[in-house]
Amino acid sequence: MAASVKYLTGDGAGIKDFIDKFDTFLFDCDGVLWSGDHVFEGVPETLLLLRSKGKRIVFVTNNSTKSRQDYVKKLAGMGIEAGPDDVFGSSYSAAVYISRILKLPAGKRKVYVIGEAGVEHELASEGVPFVGGTDPSYRRDITPEDFAGLADGSLLDPEVGAVLCGLDFHVNYLKLAHGLQYLRRGARFLATNIDSTLPMHHDIFLGAGSCSVPLANAVGEQPLALGKPSQAMMDAVEGKFQLDRARTCMVGDRLNTDIKFGIEGKLGGTLHVLTGVHSKADWEAEDAVAVPAFYADKLSDLRECA
Amino acid sequence: MAASVKYLTGDGAGIKDFIDKFDTFLFDCDGVLWSGDHVFEGVPETLLLLRSKGKRIVFVTNNSTKSRQDYVKKLAGMGIEAGPDDVFGSSYSAAVYISRILKLPAGKRKVYVIGEAGVEHELASEGVPFVGGTDPSYRRDITPEDFAGLADGSLLDPEVGAVLCGLDFHVNYLKLAHGLQYLRRGARFLATNIDSTLPMHHDIFLGAGSCSVPLANAVGEQPLALGKPSQAMMDAVEGKFQLDRARTCMVGDRLNTDIKFGIEGKLGGTLHVLTGVHSKADWEAEDAVAVPAFYADKLSDLRECA
Repeated sequence: MAASVKYLTGDGAGIKDFIDKFDTFLFDCDGVLWSGDHVFEGVPETLLLLRSKGKRIVFVTNNSTKSRQDYVKKLAGMGIEAGPDDVFGSSYSAAVYISRILKLPAGKRKVYVIGEAGVEHELASEGVPFVGGTDPSYRRDITPEDFAGLADGSLLDPEVGAVLCGLDFHVNYLKLAHGLQYLRRGARFLATNIDSTLPMHHDIFLGAGSCSVPLANAVGEQPLALGKPSQAMMDAVEGKFQLDRARTCMVGDRLNTDIKFGIEGKLGGTLHVLTGVHSKADWEAEDAVAVPAFYADKLSDLRECA
Repeated sequence: MAASVKYLTGDGAGIKDFIDKFDTFLFDCDGVLWSGDHVFEGVPETLLLLRSKGKRIVFVTNNSTKSRQDYVKKLAGMGIEAGPDDVFGSSYSAAVYISRILKLPAGKRKVYVIGEAGVEHELASEGVPFVGGTDPSYRRDITPEDFAGLADGSLLDPEVGAVLCGLDFHVNYLKLAHGLQYLRRGARFLATNIDSTLPMHHDIFLGAGSCSVPLANAVGEQPLALGKPSQAMMDAVEGKFQLDRARTCMVGDRLNTDIKFGIEGKLGGTLHVLTGVHSKADWEAEDAVAVPAFYADKLSDLRECA
């Protein structure tokens, strides 16, 4: 299968053809633009080059802990200019889905959040009421009174109609127990994303999926995940940016999120860069989850445009 | 399939035949003897009756938060006399497996525990060194320094050779992050049990499986579970009590743990009581996970022995 993946690094004419094919580039961030707090050499210049050719750039990230505004700040710190409308995160995707598509019934419009401030900011920006999240009253050990009050429902908010799980660095038994009780009472089960891991410090930590998987395991049902590769996110991106999918390219470092997202979204192309999680061997494998159309050693190789 | 399940309630002669078939009865506790802190009527008397007929009684529980000594106290509070040697819990099962079967290599003999004091007591009783568990230094939020120290290994104990997950009401991101790093460095992945749920207060809460499933999800590997229905537990029970499996009966309320445990262990019989999680409809279902040999409405029905 690898033979069909076009290698762009060092091929000036090939890069020019590639860039000319698209009007919009959707960029994954971590592993593509930067690793943790370290921006890759030449990335800001590459994005400027694309913009100078009239290309639209959208940053599409599964990181649920940050809001779009947080991302704008992070991008600026890396020397990349962007506005909140250039960023589409999984928390925002979830908020848009809940406010515009899910249509929770009257009296059941609150969302119980397991997650950090990024989720809360995006829900608030879409006018979705929520409980849980960073509320300090959930950041403690569960007590016998909590067990009783959760079982009889007296500790539950009767207006909660959905449970939304993102990555929560403060996850605990009490938060999960609330989530389980809401689900058992009929709440919709949503997740910003279900990435099992989170690359940090050149190592792997637990991702947002760690916060939903105990609940999925207990109720025997998977959450609807609204980050990559969910096509609910692609639909929301398309709706917001009025994309021509055939002239849009997804750029990423993960086959199971980024590249799959682009292929299942029937985008005109996918570009894999080798500065992140997956390598060439991953798509050359017999059971590869997705195979990109193009690849380059690093994003800044696109500057060698003929 | 239901036709082959012999109903004992009210059938004095049938009950006598049933009791005569066995020398040893393995009893699940919650849902069979009691619900939470409420002992079922007639249970202590039923156990006395069995003992008066010379039967050996062993209490076999997946509850990992309690040690055998804790169980003896709980049984006494319910009016049931027992010694620590009459109790076989999943924490004890795990401790026996680690100390007598696993044989961790020299320099890698410590166990990193996600769990409560019951696990620690049983590991200590078998002379297995451990870290984590109820140590208060793990009961806090993760910090940026923790991420760095976990990634570079400086926060890890180089002697840890296994990760053991039980039910931990104080589970948090920091504890899970330690577990993940040990597993990524080659530690064996064990669990006292992987029950997804825990019946309490006539409702369902999160079980021990909630503490291992985020790790299993991140590393793509299931833990070796040492509670019911794992046959590692049956082997340990047999070794300790020198059972004749053909003359042993498992009594329980759950098909996927208790009844499956007895059937896969090739015991002489299994008795399902209807005072707990599963009902007759569960084993009559097309895709029933296990079908008992006998059933009764409640354990104390065995007193109607002809």
